[in-house]
Amino acid sequence: MDKAQQDALKKAAGIEAAKLVENGMVVGLGTGSTVRFLVDELGRRVQEEGLQFTGVTTSRRTQEQAEGYGIKIVDVDDVDHIDVTIDGADEVDKNFDGIKGGGAALLWEKIVATNSNRIVWIVDETKVVDTIGAFPLPVEVIPFGAGHVISRFKDRGYNPVLRLDADGQPVRTDEKNYVVDLHLNRIDHPRELAEDLINTVGVVEHGLFLNMVDMVIVGDPNGPRVMTNSNK
Amino acid sequence: MDKAQQDALKKAAGIEAAKLVENGMVVGLGTGSTVRFLVDELGRRVQEEGLQFTGVTTSRRTQEQAEGYGIKIVDVDDVDHIDVTIDGADEVDKNFDGIKGGGAALLWEKIVATNSNRIVWIVDETKVVDTIGAFPLPVEVIPFGAGHVISRFKDRGYNPVLRLDADGQPVRTDEKNYVVDLHLNRIDHPRELAEDLINTVGVVEHGLFLNMVDMVIVGDPNGPRVMTNSNK
Repeated sequence: MDKAQQDALKKAAGIEAAKLVENGMVVGLGTGSTVRFLVDELGRRVQEEGLQFTGVTTSRRTQEQAEGYGIKIVDVDDVDHIDVTIDGADEVDKNFDGIKGGGAALLWEKIVATNSNRIVWIVDETKVVDTIGAFPLPVEVIPFGAGHVISRFKDRGYNPVLRLDADGQPVRTDEKNYVVDLHLNRIDHPRELAEDLINTVGVVEHGLFLNMVDMVIVGDPNGPRVMTNSNK
Repeated sequence: MDKAQQDALKKAAGIEAAKLVENGMVVGLGTGSTVRFLVDELGRRVQEEGLQFTGVTTSRRTQEQAEGYGIKIVDVDDVDHIDVTIDGADEVDKNFDGIKGGGAALLWEKIVATNSNRIVWIVDETKVVDTIGAFPLPVEVIPFGAGHVISRFKDRGYNPVLRLDADGQPVRTDEKNYVVDLHLNRIDHPRELAEDLINTVGVVEHGLFLNMVDMVIVGDPNGPRVMTNSNK
């Protein structure tokens, strides 16, 4: 699939998800290329249909895009709950276990998700997999002592790579932390891995989102299809 | 015990611990009022006895104090191991479970401790307790969404209090995070609590240091005494 085709699927999923937003809702807005299409469509509905809702964003990028459409954005701590959060994902399997954080916003994404009544992911069909792990798993790490964390990951066979920007400098998250991508190829035991990662001193958060999502809207050449999680 | 008496005990413990430092070692230097006496004594040995060692610090405060004595300080990632880390503690019990972080440096302290071959705590006798928890347990929390984390702690009966500075603003750690103190009174099941805290999204680290310390040097009116952990 070429990029234009993939973008068309992402856009279709984003437009479909925008239908879930109703007047008066508090909506968590994720981060990434698929979410950009969602926010474009929500912006259109705000401007053309007079839709009114309050957004909570998971990155400064999304905040800027949404505010550009006149969408009211508040801090996550200014709302007592979030009705629905719509976000992308890098991979998701049939057990509704997924990987997020390719865009380096996993920490804020996980915080917003944790405070949401309902979580919806929008993905193109290439993101739906049998076993997660082909996509490198992002781990947010405190810069202080990060070299030792990376050594420990190496010893455990996690194939860690510190994420660098175009200038060869470590990428910094919105919280100024590093991102270490684990090249695991496949993750057969995601819960054990999550447990190990979160108990590693220096790790702030990881990109495993296990059975957190309620609904996945998949951009498919035959039109968007919905996967509903009945085991959450 | 008044403050002058307590300071005398802290100083005695600090001077005793300084004897553990030998030429050529890499030494982790903690943070807090007892560690100040340790660094003063190490500074004296550097200047009067020509002691040479490399320090790794757990806070900007300790770094400034040590560099003032001409002690060579390097980043934790510039050494492949730390021979011994000497730090204070807010409470420690007979199982060598302790609470640290009263000084808001718990994250860096835990990172340095994790990379140390040997960990020594220096405390005055008031810090040795039967059951930890009378001292409020510090938890380092990401500012984004911190209000929801505090609500969750309230629901669990943890009596959380966001730590404020003299101006009524949230205290920020060296990593710019918040500190939430849990007023638990007593912690009967520290491992279960640690597990719950570290799995709370938004928590970076907590002040429970469970069976991590190898030796505790206790400032006692009869002279410093040593508690050795044989179960680590």
